[in-house]
Amino acid sequence: MEKDELSDIISDESRIAFEPLEPRFLSDSLGRLKGRADALVLPVSTKEVSQILRYAWEHEIPVTPRGAGTNLVGSTVPMEGGIILDLSRMNRILSLDKDTLTAEVEPGVFLKDFQAYVEGEGFFYPPDPGEKESTLGGNISTNAGGMRAVKYGVTRDYVRGLELVLADGTVLTVGSRNVKDASGLSLKNLIIGSEGTLAVITRCILKLLPKPETSLSVLVPFGSLLVGIRNVLSILKANVNPTAVEFVERKVISLGEEFLGIQYPRPDAASYILLTFDGREEEVEASANRAKELVMAQRALDYIVLRDKELSDGIWKVRGALVKAVEAVSQQEPVDIVVPIDKSSEFIDYVNQLEQEKNMQMICFGHAGDGNIHLCLVRGERDEETWNRELKENMRLVYEKAFKLGGLTSGEHGIGLSKRPYFLSGTSSENLEVMNRIKEALDPKGILNYGKSYITGGKEHAETV
Amino acid sequence: MEKDELSDIISDESRIAFEPLEPRFLSDSLGRLKGRADALVLPVSTKEVSQILRYAWEHEIPVTPRGAGTNLVGSTVPMEGGIILDLSRMNRILSLDKDTLTAEVEPGVFLKDFQAYVEGEGFFYPPDPGEKESTLGGNISTNAGGMRAVKYGVTRDYVRGLELVLADGTVLTVGSRNVKDASGLSLKNLIIGSEGTLAVITRCILKLLPKPETSLSVLVPFGSLLVGIRNVLSILKANVNPTAVEFVERKVISLGEEFLGIQYPRPDAASYILLTFDGREEEVEASANRAKELVMAQRALDYIVLRDKELSDGIWKVRGALVKAVEAVSQQEPVDIVVPIDKSSEFIDYVNQLEQEKNMQMICFGHAGDGNIHLCLVRGERDEETWNRELKENMRLVYEKAFKLGGLTSGEHGIGLSKRPYFLSGTSSENLEVMNRIKEALDPKGILNYGKSYITGGKEHAETV
Repeated sequence: MEKDELSDIISDESRIAFEPLEPRFLSDSLGRLKGRADALVLPVSTKEVSQILRYAWEHEIPVTPRGAGTNLVGSTVPMEGGIILDLSRMNRILSLDKDTLTAEVEPGVFLKDFQAYVEGEGFFYPPDPGEKESTLGGNISTNAGGMRAVKYGVTRDYVRGLELVLADGTVLTVGSRNVKDASGLSLKNLIIGSEGTLAVITRCILKLLPKPETSLSVLVPFGSLLVGIRNVLSILKANVNPTAVEFVERKVISLGEEFLGIQYPRPDAASYILLTFDGREEEVEASANRAKELVMAQRALDYIVLRDKELSDGIWKVRGALVKAVEAVSQQEPVDIVVPIDKSSEFIDYVNQLEQEKNMQMICFGHAGDGNIHLCLVRGERDEETWNRELKENMRLVYEKAFKLGGLTSGEHGIGLSKRPYFLSGTSSENLEVMNRIKEALDPKGILNYGKSYITGGKEHAETV
Repeated sequence: MEKDELSDIISDESRIAFEPLEPRFLSDSLGRLKGRADALVLPVSTKEVSQILRYAWEHEIPVTPRGAGTNLVGSTVPMEGGIILDLSRMNRILSLDKDTLTAEVEPGVFLKDFQAYVEGEGFFYPPDPGEKESTLGGNISTNAGGMRAVKYGVTRDYVRGLELVLADGTVLTVGSRNVKDASGLSLKNLIIGSEGTLAVITRCILKLLPKPETSLSVLVPFGSLLVGIRNVLSILKANVNPTAVEFVERKVISLGEEFLGIQYPRPDAASYILLTFDGREEEVEASANRAKELVMAQRALDYIVLRDKELSDGIWKVRGALVKAVEAVSQQEPVDIVVPIDKSSEFIDYVNQLEQEKNMQMICFGHAGDGNIHLCLVRGERDEETWNRELKENMRLVYEKAFKLGGLTSGEHGIGLSKRPYFLSGTSSENLEVMNRIKEALDPKGILNYGKSYITGGKEHAETV
């Protein structure tokens, strides 16, 4: 690679660096996978992104795009040297169009900053993944979900348009400010969730909603998880339109309680369902009342309406801190399997059995309303070699079970490197072939995030199961 | 083409025919474009579809897939001879899964039959394009929209999974019963709206909602369309979550009134906004009341709550019959342009001016809540040659205006043949190239619906502007 040519494009020395690079740019949020790269560039315009990609294209240099690097699956680990293309300096909120309920942003804007900005203007951006210091471009690249997906859907549902740069430097715009679109292939939808393998996102038009006037959370303790999950299925059919439907087992909550020093009510429960309703005041009250009648008739132990803001915040804080609470105690491997919603309890039962059988702590919690289960496999006191061997074996078993139940490798984290072996083993060769033909069609030299997710073929780097 | 080989696959004589074919199989709903084909087959299984495609693939025979043929843009017109693959006999509703709120169907099921079936079971399938005798496979292929899109979204939002057959006969499944998916490229979303150019849909898993408990419509007359559209923008920001927000001008309604013998109230109005709210009783009432306060403060002439079922049905019947009312009087060309919602009134103003200037009747109505405008250019007494010339010129002008406003060729009808010249002229060469590279990747022999929509390149059939 010619340092001079790259420096001609990015002339500002504070936005370009060469080997050796800071380790944080060579990994993801967990920091366990480490790649290598020759250069790091931080473009500030679409033009710079296009010029860098054109240069990389001409010289067949691998490019690894990244935002804040908060992903959990190694999507941002550069595997082949080359250039790290860090979009975090392209972080301007460009416009808010109150008539079309859309905003235009650069990809490096933090989710938390965008949410705060639009809410300050009376609007609402529903996608709400746990990590708020992730970038919007990263959210789009993994089709991030989060707690509000039950009512509002996922990131895909809030992307109206994208400006993209293809592997060869070509700039194009897909989608638009329009609400409906039946005009040709939906390139926008192909790019969403493609983890930087097909194009680099340089601008986003996002859909907003009017800000809900109020919201109310309810904690529902149950004597068993199975009863809790059955209640979730009833709630989803009951025209009460909950925003969030989370589940968590008592044994898991204890970890979060210790971590934060906040107590959940009804410690005698085996599991909790945590509900939120939002909308207009009277609507929220009516929904919460109807849900109460429903669950109290179906063996809920209690129905604790969290009107006290401090209590409500504390309850959600514990739920939100579970991964960090686990990570504080021991290394862990996060899994975000998704199964059809009626299969959640069967999957969790299986994990609980496996936990006993294999003597490895397994923490389950997550989005009961959409079957998206966060599972942490915990290392505990295992030495490196034992941990690697047992983790691999147990991961294989949980994914096998999920696939048997009709589930998928990832609901919202993406595949990246670390979930790739499981994704490849759980996806038909026909599907993988079509995905790879599309990769080949858009990036025939294979420079963009090669070796990640679905990409198979000549350049094989990640291990397979 | 070897008749015997095709007859070996489709042995039932009632499900195969050879040239000359009934004219209805060679066209679309309008019947003005006519193609030609050597054979018509009506498969009843995925296996048969796969065998037919494998045969066509080996012999490089063009294949034109179709459902009920109700499209308005010539998507089902066979341009190159070959085989018409009619999916209408694959019309079984296979299962309804009440726990995951999904149904599995074959692609030939009529929308109206599916809606009736799921509503009978207490569920709701929101996509609601005007033509209820369209097939679900056809709806998916054009990403059909309809009146309820404001609140509920379009067909894309209700497709969980698809079984597909690729051009070479390969069968694959994309998507699943799972709610969330961040696992590899979203092939499902690439296929939705692709108008039969990438694959043939043989099975669909559709998402359902609980059936809304009640609904209520309101007719709001205004002194001008501009004021009406401004009110629509306010309503969309007001947390009243309307299901449908339609607009229609008084001069247009008169046609429907004559056609059906039903009168709209307040004939002194220049335009009407027609609203629907659905949900729980108290929710619907609260939304309707709040919307009333809002529009009465913003120059609505009246706020007519349509509690009388007969009146409400009549009002909607007139709205639904507008295209047929126009078509009954004269030949017309339907356009379903979409523009950003705040640009609707500017677009309609332009059309009204053009109507005067060019002395050609132009009927505008449609989905005010999503900027999707149905426009009929009416032939009147013009002779064939004059009509063709003037239609072409005026179509060019209205599309140019729409593109200038940031609009798109089609919101829900698709591109097919008849909107292709406008789509090609309004889409950047970069986007077209990427679409065509994907076509080439999935169907390198170009046998599936060649010459339709975005497809350019070697085999050019449709005229361009």
